[in-house]
Amino acid sequence: MIVALAGGVGGAKLAQGLYRVLPPDTLTVIVNTADDFELWGLHISPDLDTVMYTLAGLANPVTGWGVVDESWQALAMLRRYGYETWFQIGDRDLATHVARSDWLRQGASLTEVTQRFTRALGLRAQLLPMCDAPVRTLVDTPAGRFEFQEYFVRRQHRDAVRGIELRGIEQAQLTSPVRAALAAAQAVVICPSNPIVSIGPILAVSGMRAALHQTGAPVVAVSPIVGGKALRGPADRMLAGLGHEPSALGVARIYAGLIDGLVIDQADAEQRAAIEALGLRVLVTDAVMRDEEDRRRLAEETLAFARECAR
Amino acid sequence: MIVALAGGVGGAKLAQGLYRVLPPDTLTVIVNTADDFELWGLHISPDLDTVMYTLAGLANPVTGWGVVDESWQALAMLRRYGYETWFQIGDRDLATHVARSDWLRQGASLTEVTQRFTRALGLRAQLLPMCDAPVRTLVDTPAGRFEFQEYFVRRQHRDAVRGIELRGIEQAQLTSPVRAALAAAQAVVICPSNPIVSIGPILAVSGMRAALHQTGAPVVAVSPIVGGKALRGPADRMLAGLGHEPSALGVARIYAGLIDGLVIDQADAEQRAAIEALGLRVLVTDAVMRDEEDRRRLAEETLAFARECAR
Repeated sequence: MIVALAGGVGGAKLAQGLYRVLPPDTLTVIVNTADDFELWGLHISPDLDTVMYTLAGLANPVTGWGVVDESWQALAMLRRYGYETWFQIGDRDLATHVARSDWLRQGASLTEVTQRFTRALGLRAQLLPMCDAPVRTLVDTPAGRFEFQEYFVRRQHRDAVRGIELRGIEQAQLTSPVRAALAAAQAVVICPSNPIVSIGPILAVSGMRAALHQTGAPVVAVSPIVGGKALRGPADRMLAGLGHEPSALGVARIYAGLIDGLVIDQADAEQRAAIEALGLRVLVTDAVMRDEEDRRRLAEETLAFARECAR
Repeated sequence: MIVALAGGVGGAKLAQGLYRVLPPDTLTVIVNTADDFELWGLHISPDLDTVMYTLAGLANPVTGWGVVDESWQALAMLRRYGYETWFQIGDRDLATHVARSDWLRQGASLTEVTQRFTRALGLRAQLLPMCDAPVRTLVDTPAGRFEFQEYFVRRQHRDAVRGIELRGIEQAQLTSPVRAALAAAQAVVICPSNPIVSIGPILAVSGMRAALHQTGAPVVAVSPIVGGKALRGPADRMLAGLGHEPSALGVARIYAGLIDGLVIDQADAEQRAAIEALGLRVLVTDAVMRDEEDRRRLAEETLAFARECAR
């Protein structure tokens, strides 16, 4: 049993690699839900959807988010009805939000809703929201405080980030399936997602760090920073804005005490000694996933590295 | 100011004819909402939508319901998620239900929601739900009691109808806009919709019949039965099943005491005397609307007939 922690597009890529190389029904992905939000009266879970669509082979291969072979007819009508449409929801994607909102209103938990989706799509991996309670990331910037999607999508993450608040995190609890998955884990892989706003909320759920410590399983992370840059999104500027070094070493410092090993890119090989000085093992490899073969290869290398870290 | 009462497709056709021949902002259509229902957690108002799409030139010209240039991507996903999809909602149509449900949950009345739609679509006619309270038509058949859309769409109105209940009708009240429209009406046109389940609920709203009597304006109806057959849908069998004669004369008997005149088709010319014996004026014309020109012509003839009835 392997557990992965993931946010959106970057995390979903490695999660897909893991899904492809592992036997069926042996992968659990715990997914960030702190960038969930409500739009048009519907409950949107961007990271859960990205991971689900990616594992199901439904993800748009160009954008990384949203659904392949998408159309935009509902969006055009909603624009006509006066709605702002900066968050682009296609017709196929819309069905997911309609169904999720319907099931949640009927009393299902987000965990149960996610299970219904993955069963319907025939996924042989378990996707788990990090918690069932609503947690919302708020981003403080010089231009004001924004809800995460407002900062990320509408304002295209151009604002400097001065602070992050996870509203509701104190009510968030480990769910039974998350607890069970961690207890049974032979390895835990922290995917190359934003350490602050994707992995950060997952780790901030009450009991999560303790459960990770108690597994006894090796915990390894894959750096989302390569050559001082985020492969995607604003992680590099966000790290710098919050006083972290935007580098593999900076990521290592954030995860130090939690992980046993860090996978970094060849571009960052010279940081190896500094990271090892933190008490971490290091795997230097090609950490950039350009295609599905890269995802598989990096997944295999990361799993082998985790086995080494367990010794 | 002209007021029309309408249900779905048949009523929408004449309403469109009236809209085309009348000056802007002089038509109010009061629409049946007793076949509204909830699907996928969304509030669907089939008759309001049909009238709105038809007047806005958005209606699917083949089916008469739904939206032109429609796609079905969301529906296919919802089917994949395990939903029954016998009620066919296209992607463009879905946007309407998402917006309506969102606005209703925010506290808007159905009247206000409908006004937002018609403004957004640039309609120069007022569409009014018959009331803001939820009324639901239940259909008693030998196979059991069904909600209206279950009877009509899912079971394709094949069951014999033994009774109709309008659940919630005792709570339904005239809204201020309906009252104002009727008070200002120079003529009231009952469109060729099903007298039992389309016009019946409108007339059953508390105060509606009294308001119609008090207008002083002529009230004329267009028979939805031609040659003993409903032009569309199950009105003929439903009338017979409930003890009415499925004919123009049967329609006249249902509306007697309420209307001043009835428009019937040439095919039913021989019923003229019997209808006049009920104290009604009769216009015999071509009452079948095959194309938009027919809609305009029948609208003009009906309005001229109403003026005659006023004398």
